[in-house]
Amino acid sequence: MKHLFTSDYCELAHPAVLEAFSAIGNTQFEGYGLDEFSMRASDLVRTLVNFPSADVHFIAGGTHTNLVLISSVLRPHEAVIAPKTGHIFVHETGAIEATGHKICTAQGDSGKLSVPEVEAIVKEHCDEHMVKPKLVYISLSTECGTVYSKAELTALSSYCRSNGLYLFMDGARLGAAVNSPACDLKYADIAALCDAFYIGGTKNGALFGEALVLTNDAFKDDFRFLIKQRGAMLAKGAAIGLQFEALLKDGLYDKLASHSVNMAMKLADGIKAAGYGFLYPPQTNLIIPVLPKATASKLRESYGFHDWEDRGDMLAIRLVTSWATPEAFVNEFLTELV
Amino acid sequence: MKHLFTSDYCELAHPAVLEAFSAIGNTQFEGYGLDEFSMRASDLVRTLVNFPSADVHFIAGGTHTNLVLISSVLRPHEAVIAPKTGHIFVHETGAIEATGHKICTAQGDSGKLSVPEVEAIVKEHCDEHMVKPKLVYISLSTECGTVYSKAELTALSSYCRSNGLYLFMDGARLGAAVNSPACDLKYADIAALCDAFYIGGTKNGALFGEALVLTNDAFKDDFRFLIKQRGAMLAKGAAIGLQFEALLKDGLYDKLASHSVNMAMKLADGIKAAGYGFLYPPQTNLIIPVLPKATASKLRESYGFHDWEDRGDMLAIRLVTSWATPEAFVNEFLTELV
Amino acid sequence: MKHLFTSDYCELAHPAVLEAFSAIGNTQFEGYGLDEFSMRASDLVRTLVNFPSADVHFIAGGTHTNLVLISSVLRPHEAVIAPKTGHIFVHETGAIEATGHKICTAQGDSGKLSVPEVEAIVKEHCDEHMVKPKLVYISLSTECGTVYSKAELTALSSYCRSNGLYLFMDGARLGAAVNSPACDLKYADIAALCDAFYIGGTKNGALFGEALVLTNDAFKDDFRFLIKQRGAMLAKGAAIGLQFEALLKDGLYDKLASHSVNMAMKLADGIKAAGYGFLYPPQTNLIIPVLPKATASKLRESYGFHDWEDRGDMLAIRLVTSWATPEAFVNEFLTELV
Amino acid sequence: MKHLFTSDYCELAHPAVLEAFSAIGNTQFEGYGLDEFSMRASDLVRTLVNFPSADVHFIAGGTHTNLVLISSVLRPHEAVIAPKTGHIFVHETGAIEATGHKICTAQGDSGKLSVPEVEAIVKEHCDEHMVKPKLVYISLSTECGTVYSKAELTALSSYCRSNGLYLFMDGARLGAAVNSPACDLKYADIAALCDAFYIGGTKNGALFGEALVLTNDAFKDDFRFLIKQRGAMLAKGAAIGLQFEALLKDGLYDKLASHSVNMAMKLADGIKAAGYGFLYPPQTNLIIPVLPKATASKLRESYGFHDWEDRGDMLAIRLVTSWATPEAFVNEFLTELV
Repeated sequence: MKHLFTSDYCELAHPAVLEAFSAIGNTQFEGYGLDEFSMRASDLVRTLVNFPSADVHFIAGGTHTNLVLISSVLRPHEAVIAPKTGHIFVHETGAIEATGHKICTAQGDSGKLSVPEVEAIVKEHCDEHMVKPKLVYISLSTECGTVYSKAELTALSSYCRSNGLYLFMDGARLGAAVNSPACDLKYADIAALCDAFYIGGTKNGALFGEALVLTNDAFKDDFRFLIKQRGAMLAKGAAIGLQFEALLKDGLYDKLASHSVNMAMKLADGIKAAGYGFLYPPQTNLIIPVLPKATASKLRESYGFHDWEDRGDMLAIRLVTSWATPEAFVNEFLTELV
Repeated sequence: MKHLFTSDYCELAHPAVLEAFSAIGNTQFEGYGLDEFSMRASDLVRTLVNFPSADVHFIAGGTHTNLVLISSVLRPHEAVIAPKTGHIFVHETGAIEATGHKICTAQGDSGKLSVPEVEAIVKEHCDEHMVKPKLVYISLSTECGTVYSKAELTALSSYCRSNGLYLFMDGARLGAAVNSPACDLKYADIAALCDAFYIGGTKNGALFGEALVLTNDAFKDDFRFLIKQRGAMLAKGAAIGLQFEALLKDGLYDKLASHSVNMAMKLADGIKAAGYGFLYPPQTNLIIPVLPKATASKLRESYGFHDWEDRGDMLAIRLVTSWATPEAFVNEFLTELV
Repeated sequence: MKHLFTSDYCELAHPAVLEAFSAIGNTQFEGYGLDEFSMRASDLVRTLVNFPSADVHFIAGGTHTNLVLISSVLRPHEAVIAPKTGHIFVHETGAIEATGHKICTAQGDSGKLSVPEVEAIVKEHCDEHMVKPKLVYISLSTECGTVYSKAELTALSSYCRSNGLYLFMDGARLGAAVNSPACDLKYADIAALCDAFYIGGTKNGALFGEALVLTNDAFKDDFRFLIKQRGAMLAKGAAIGLQFEALLKDGLYDKLASHSVNMAMKLADGIKAAGYGFLYPPQTNLIIPVLPKATASKLRESYGFHDWEDRGDMLAIRLVTSWATPEAFVNEFLTELV
Repeated sequence: MKHLFTSDYCELAHPAVLEAFSAIGNTQFEGYGLDEFSMRASDLVRTLVNFPSADVHFIAGGTHTNLVLISSVLRPHEAVIAPKTGHIFVHETGAIEATGHKICTAQGDSGKLSVPEVEAIVKEHCDEHMVKPKLVYISLSTECGTVYSKAELTALSSYCRSNGLYLFMDGARLGAAVNSPACDLKYADIAALCDAFYIGGTKNGALFGEALVLTNDAFKDDFRFLIKQRGAMLAKGAAIGLQFEALLKDGLYDKLASHSVNMAMKLADGIKAAGYGFLYPPQTNLIIPVLPKATASKLRESYGFHDWEDRGDMLAIRLVTSWATPEAFVNEFLTELV
């Protein structure tokens, strides 16, 4: 069978997560995320992000987390600003619009929004015949595998706070970003600069589950009503709490993220050494090299990956490593590359 | 710690389910429910319900399943008919209305809808100033713990088919119903009589997950778009497929459901023997005895359960057993009861 | 042709309204309700209701006004409390649910909600598994033709303010209520006691149009965005402003409403004199007498009206008079009745 | 007071429309658009567009018409394709998204969509992680004042029919387009090529009102439910029927549209003669000349118009004429221009 560099959700879960399930046996717990495991996991999240007053909610998947948060905090006429590559704009089947909200897009650079782009959208929306942009959606790491610098995120946050906008970060791959050598942001910076963000479990060792962190007090009231209404409140919420406890209590989450980034960096180094370039700077566990089509075709016989962009004789492909990627496969890939 | 008869979602998962997770290790799989485990589990479901042309989709929870199905098959002006006790009407935080659809309710008897009740609602909605009832929502077993007979379900189905209505069954506790001595319905009957229904995993041994079965061909087109749009498509869909495969391949699902029903019947027998009655006939793993308040208070010291209805000196309480309920706790409860 | 007592929207518009249209000729004006006529009409409304800080918005019809207001002020999980006879619950094709909000109903008495009914609904909704009732919807006059007393409205308002609920009044027939001898409420009382209400033009002399009054400051922000988003902002908003100016500047609105109530009272007196009773006390321009079926059938040959309720040998019918009802028709009706 | 070339909704209504109101006096009629005037107006529309089987519905305004039609015919995951300049995308406050549907945009040329642009969007949306484009929205005349040729519209229609897409035309300014010398499309062509379109009254002589024409049989079922649910069913639907009867029975509609186009053409000729160009070819009653900023500033002292685009020393401005524009104002404008 081919080895898949398709995405970072292709392996089930880290053994420590499964062990946490097994360990509790038939111990009974409170339903709907009010169990002790979820409570402890929430505390671990608050500690990790150094934001004691944050509310933490666990939701099964990323699209669901995005739509619950966004539809909870916006009034009907308020809109989202996102880069064109934003997951909510491209790959969530109109989930945000289905809750009634328009997404206004900017071109972005390497998947990232800049303050001038946000400002241009805000200024363009000048009266009640247009939606009112209210929430800025960004991803870290981005869909292009890139990271914001602390300076960039600070500038965005500052603009948002000065202009009555919320800043929300999709952190499906937050672990890979924070553990990237290219990134000078810590979890605590993100909590301090965003109104809400989530720490992705699905793509970093969990069976499923994302930890949504609300730092803006205005977001907290009645949030569990919204989770329930959108179908996002698992009867056995403990199933996510247990996982985050296992991932966070001893630093496993960062360890796994580091491994995935390391494997991607090793791939990137090998690709560079072989003389090829990248569409965007390789910074996290998702990289986009540009290879000759013949090379890509040969690699496709043994490896799974997505095509990103046709560039004449060359093809940009997306390679994603995970917490479970064996170094051996990376080495083999690089051997076949040459 | 108290033993909980609060609900059937208070224990995590049957060991066979967790073993299925462990067994695959880091084997890679396709994302979004297109994996081989989900395919095999779908086949097992189709075999179980004897409906080879059915489409099967796995969704994490019950509220989510209800809202995805209902919002997918109705036009904006079409409404749902449900009993007043229906879960979608009472306990899903307006999830159906949040997708734009009104729920028209009938009183129901013991949680069950009858044909005359459905007919009365249909006739009352006579023009375009009112919504158009289009889908009948029922639960098996009901929120009162009762079951429809085959004759009752056949009558409902027949009325619906003659009058252009869809029949949808919420099967969060379908296992307990089908394995109840009071129920003459088989899975195949349900598939033959309903347009869609789901087989609940969360409340019968799974960590989480429901198997939604679409038998009406008109429901099938583009259904995965709707799953994705509502945030219900897990990246690791395999996590549900694996569970249903484990539960269905050797009949474990029915074995677990039988156990839960048996434990409830034993509770019911003891309660009857102690001279107490029930609000509704005890038929499945959820029973509602009416006890003296003093007795209820004493039991509450050692057991968890929900109050159902205050009846003067008496209190109706809801007792729910599960696949994991130890017979010892049932015996102890009955001892304390006397 | 039959004379219609079907409703109060069966004649086009009072001549003064049409003259106001003609009078301006091709004078150009600002679009979208920002014209001078709408400004002056808003001032007249503020004066009428003695609430200088109120915001006034003109919307073409009642259902539209209800849905714009309700969907603007509620968060997604918040719900409406209404009597079962409420127009939004029965006769607006699920317009409120189509914006995502559930309506929780109480039985009501003669179309009116009482504080204990509202309180019961509030208490029943105790956690995040249920919607959160937030807005109380009432009508004046009600769909049964009845009116709230000042004491009743004060009690409702007081309960709402003490419990964080909004009070919204559908005033499609507000003129008939305020000009009813049975009603001790003035426009200013209503403005003081409600968070929002509207003064119906369509059913009292206008070609079309309702004046929505926002007294709660929390409702005012960005309200024009919501009007536009729901398709309720007419390019020629002036067309409604002109009408309300014509109706309000010299007291025509109340004069027309008085006429309609007088005609209904005359009908009611004659019906009583003929020995028949009413389903609800006849208080406004909509009355519901209970007549022998034979009598009703005979009347139907010459008059249009809606059947309300079959009561064995008797039939409750709905008779509605308007600003344009000729007294001659009332007299003839009463002659035929005997 | 300045003369307004701001838009074509700045004068109230043609006298013939107001006379139609006056003429019926207090004649009673059926409510909700079921009156004889609306029936006759519908027949006139069907005759005008030469489509005997079409359904015709009258709705108060354009945004409302767009949202009722689009939300009625799409399933939740289906999306709209529109040019970036499309009114629904830019100037309707997210009304379409508020009903749950995403709008996918193409650049367009002079406000018009081309088949390759539509095709590119269709091909890009390849799986269930993206919305499914289903309805193509175009305007005639466009927001840039331009018109589609018969060949262009035929090509779009043909592509749509071959690819399972609906074609919907926003005809807020349809009269000006059909009566433009630059346009070879007749009403009957449009009816034959589109699945639905509307004939705008508001911007061509009516007080308010648009005539929505459904030619696709699949759109017809239950359409009045949707009109009512979105708040678009006026109690006095007759008020629109009467207007369209007055406008269509003797060709007044086309006469008024011709006048507005003629006035714009005269403006355009004068502007050209003065040596200035246009952003888009001047084809209808909305033209966008590019003038020196000093000239624009001087004109602004006496005339109202919108700025369209800053082009350095030059300014593109939007001039709109109407059925009521006096030729004298056009002459004066051109005199001041030089």
